Amino acid sequence: MKTIYKAHILFTKEKSRFEVFENGYIAVAANGQVIGVAENEQECEKWKVGNEDIEVIDFGDRLLIPAMNDLHVHAPQYRNQGLAMDLELLPWLQNYTFPEEMKYADLGYAERMYRRFVHDLWRFGTMRACVFATIHTESTRLLMRLFKEAGMGALVGKVAMNRNCPESLKESVEEMVKGYEELINDFRINNLGFRDEKMLVGPIITPRFIPSCTPEMLQACGELAAKYQLPVQSHLSENQDEIALVKTLEKDSTCYGDAYNRYCLFGQTPTVMAHCVWTKGEELELMKQNNVMVAHCPTSNLNVASGMAPIRHFLDEGLQVGLGSDISGGHDLNLFRIMVYAIQVSKMHYQQNHEQPFLTLSEAFWMATKSAGNFFGQVGSFEPGYEFDALVIDDSDLNHDNYSLLERLERIIYLGDDRQIVHRFCCGKEITEPKITCGS
Amino acid sequence: MKTIYKAHILFTKEKSRFEVFENGYIAVAANGQVIGVAENEQECEKWKVGNEDIEVIDFGDRLLIPAMNDLHVHAPQYRNQGLAMDLELLPWLQNYTFPEEMKYADLGYAERMYRRFVHDLWRFGTMRACVFATIHTESTRLLMRLFKEAGMGALVGKVAMNRNCPESLKESVEEMVKGYEELINDFRINNLGFRDEKMLVGPIITPRFIPSCTPEMLQACGELAAKYQLPVQSHLSENQDEIALVKTLEKDSTCYGDAYNRYCLFGQTPTVMAHCVWTKGEELELMKQNNVMVAHCPTSNLNVASGMAPIRHFLDEGLQVGLGSDISGGHDLNLFRIMVYAIQVSKMHYQQNHEQPFLTLSEAFWMATKSAGNFFGQVGSFEPGYEFDALVIDDSDLNHDNYSLLERLERIIYLGDDRQIVHRFCCGKEITEPKITCGS
Repeated sequence: MKTIYKAHILFTKEKSRFEVFENGYIAVAANGQVIGVAENEQECEKWKVGNEDIEVIDFGDRLLIPAMNDLHVHAPQYRNQGLAMDLELLPWLQNYTFPEEMKYADLGYAERMYRRFVHDLWRFGTMRACVFATIHTESTRLLMRLFKEAGMGALVGKVAMNRNCPESLKESVEEMVKGYEELINDFRINNLGFRDEKMLVGPIITPRFIPSCTPEMLQACGELAAKYQLPVQSHLSENQDEIALVKTLEKDSTCYGDAYNRYCLFGQTPTVMAHCVWTKGEELELMKQNNVMVAHCPTSNLNVASGMAPIRHFLDEGLQVGLGSDISGGHDLNLFRIMVYAIQVSKMHYQQNHEQPFLTLSEAFWMATKSAGNFFGQVGSFEPGYEFDALVIDDSDLNHDNYSLLERLERIIYLGDDRQIVHRFCCGKEITEPKITCGS
Repeated sequence: MKTIYKAHILFTKEKSRFEVFENGYIAVAANGQVIGVAENEQECEKWKVGNEDIEVIDFGDRLLIPAMNDLHVHAPQYRNQGLAMDLELLPWLQNYTFPEEMKYADLGYAERMYRRFVHDLWRFGTMRACVFATIHTESTRLLMRLFKEAGMGALVGKVAMNRNCPESLKESVEEMVKGYEELINDFRINNLGFRDEKMLVGPIITPRFIPSCTPEMLQACGELAAKYQLPVQSHLSENQDEIALVKTLEKDSTCYGDAYNRYCLFGQTPTVMAHCVWTKGEELELMKQNNVMVAHCPTSNLNVASGMAPIRHFLDEGLQVGLGSDISGGHDLNLFRIMVYAIQVSKMHYQQNHEQPFLTLSEAFWMATKSAGNFFGQVGSFEPGYEFDALVIDDSDLNHDNYSLLERLERIIYLGDDRQIVHRFCCGKEITEPKITCGS
């Protein structure tokens, strides 16, 4: 059965402008896909087959927008969100991040934290995420199960790492491959109770980054991605010390991106790389050629003092760019705020060079919806055939004067938070609040 | 009668570190001033006079911190908060700011918006603010009355401007002086029903900025400040076009700050200047000499693409620096978030020059509390003699693991919002929610 929703509908088919349907209608098929958008009730007639009676759910004066997609986030760092922001990258990793990730050998701890993480993604209207877990297969499976139970989309990576980290966070290449194949078996090949027709939840090959992985580990990751045709995520060119380190570790590579490319981890299957703050020249060309996507994480780049990624330049070059919260380098799960930061960082580039116009609101919105959504399939827009991933926004507390619809949306993004999000949909289904507490 | 509050007490006596009293006690005198802080109940005995029985109000596991002070905010731009962020400074002023300020000739409109503004300052725990109003004497008086009724502290400036703006926002020098003297009479000299023993609410001389004021207007502002010994606020060195314009308008001045100084608007009475993004050399020396305070507005500086103020350098030079929301150049009233932005902006300076360490959390907190509070008297700390301006924070929703008190405070600042603020005090009195709706 199809459903029609009535609301003020806004989305970005193209990055340069919003599509706005004041008191518009959107029809969603039984399979959760958008049939189309209409400006008025008469137009809805086209969706009726025979004498079909279609229910219209009226959201009144509320806004209906695509749900948020987070292209880069570390689930096991959720406990450390908003902490240790006085530290630099290396002491922060050694003193906060690695000790925290070790705790995920304990399934009880993992469940307590991962439930909260999934709950809070839901809370902020993020219906799809590209997630780093830890090396631990069991707790990674648990995280995938929690996403599945919530009905939210996620590509979840068991993290591959075997050097430059504490012993208890190292795994042998064989263990890594075995763990991945278990997860692939559960979530992809067989039908073990939580198999998912739409592949809402699935594994993603996740070498932490070059400094954490020996050549053998990288090789095995690339082979897994090719064998099972799985997507890939990692970190790229986040800060200058890291880039220098990669140069010493991968001497034959011509750039950081080339190091991934040599192991078939750079676009041979769909690939997203977080940060790319210092990506240019050959690396940028390779990303374009191989269609490697950028996860832009402006809060993290500021907090960890990495620098400012040149997103306008990337867009001009035709790179695909989405946004990431990068918890806990980033401190905020709310993609609305990440959009604001993306615009602000682009304004700093603009302030230094007026030939690089800053990002517009529609561009930031497009990065968080349609552009990032593309990594998950037909996601992030309300065009026909797209999955109906949507948020219903009640901004009555922010809408105290005669604001236009675009002004209302801008205020929601700049001033709003989870309180304005009153309904969330993923793949056509309304997603209710996931449980924080453990136990079935 | 004195009151003792029990809670986890945190404040910054010095910028370099937090004072932390886990399950501590703070005694407040009947006049609203802090008597002292104690580590345990035994120590409280010292506060008892004779057989005096003092009530202890126990806030349990909650945090007690000084309230926030906003050193720069435009009340009549509140309707435009989070709007028009795609525009640059000049079209933004012409198309959004000036047309909005014109509306404040209408007292009914002013009351509707100003009530919301005062309410939302309260909501975010800002108990003191340095406020720009408009040229309109009546609506400025109304805003002062609303602060007075709320019990919150504010220095409110009727804006002086007579050039480079629409006709309806120009006022003659004589009208400006007359309007100010009316407000001074109401709030300072006489006792017209809302006179305030502690001078919680009072006028501040407010030339908009040099480009908006003729020499005669600036002269009259300086004379008013001297005659009535009133503080002064304005804008300084926000962006480079503005600085160039000031050079052409005030040809004899050696720098932008010197232009104010020639009219006795630069520290002759207590003075705060917003932005100072490009302040250096002679201007910086003049600020030090004259003890002119900086209102650092990082969100605004990013949104309007002004640049990044070198706050570490200012602190090293011994300048007094507080924080400002600068609504609506800034988009957020929440001083917690302004602290985060201040740290992030300082990290961008650090990223470019590692000899300038970035701001620590205690430094950002100190700027928003004790340093900014200094402009309002003994405000922003819990040392003896300070006004008891305080927030009680219930962070149970953020405190889901064994966080230390400092970690809890950091998470409140990075992740929290108005929902965690459960009590607000100004000058010892609990401040209840101001009414949004009009009418007595």
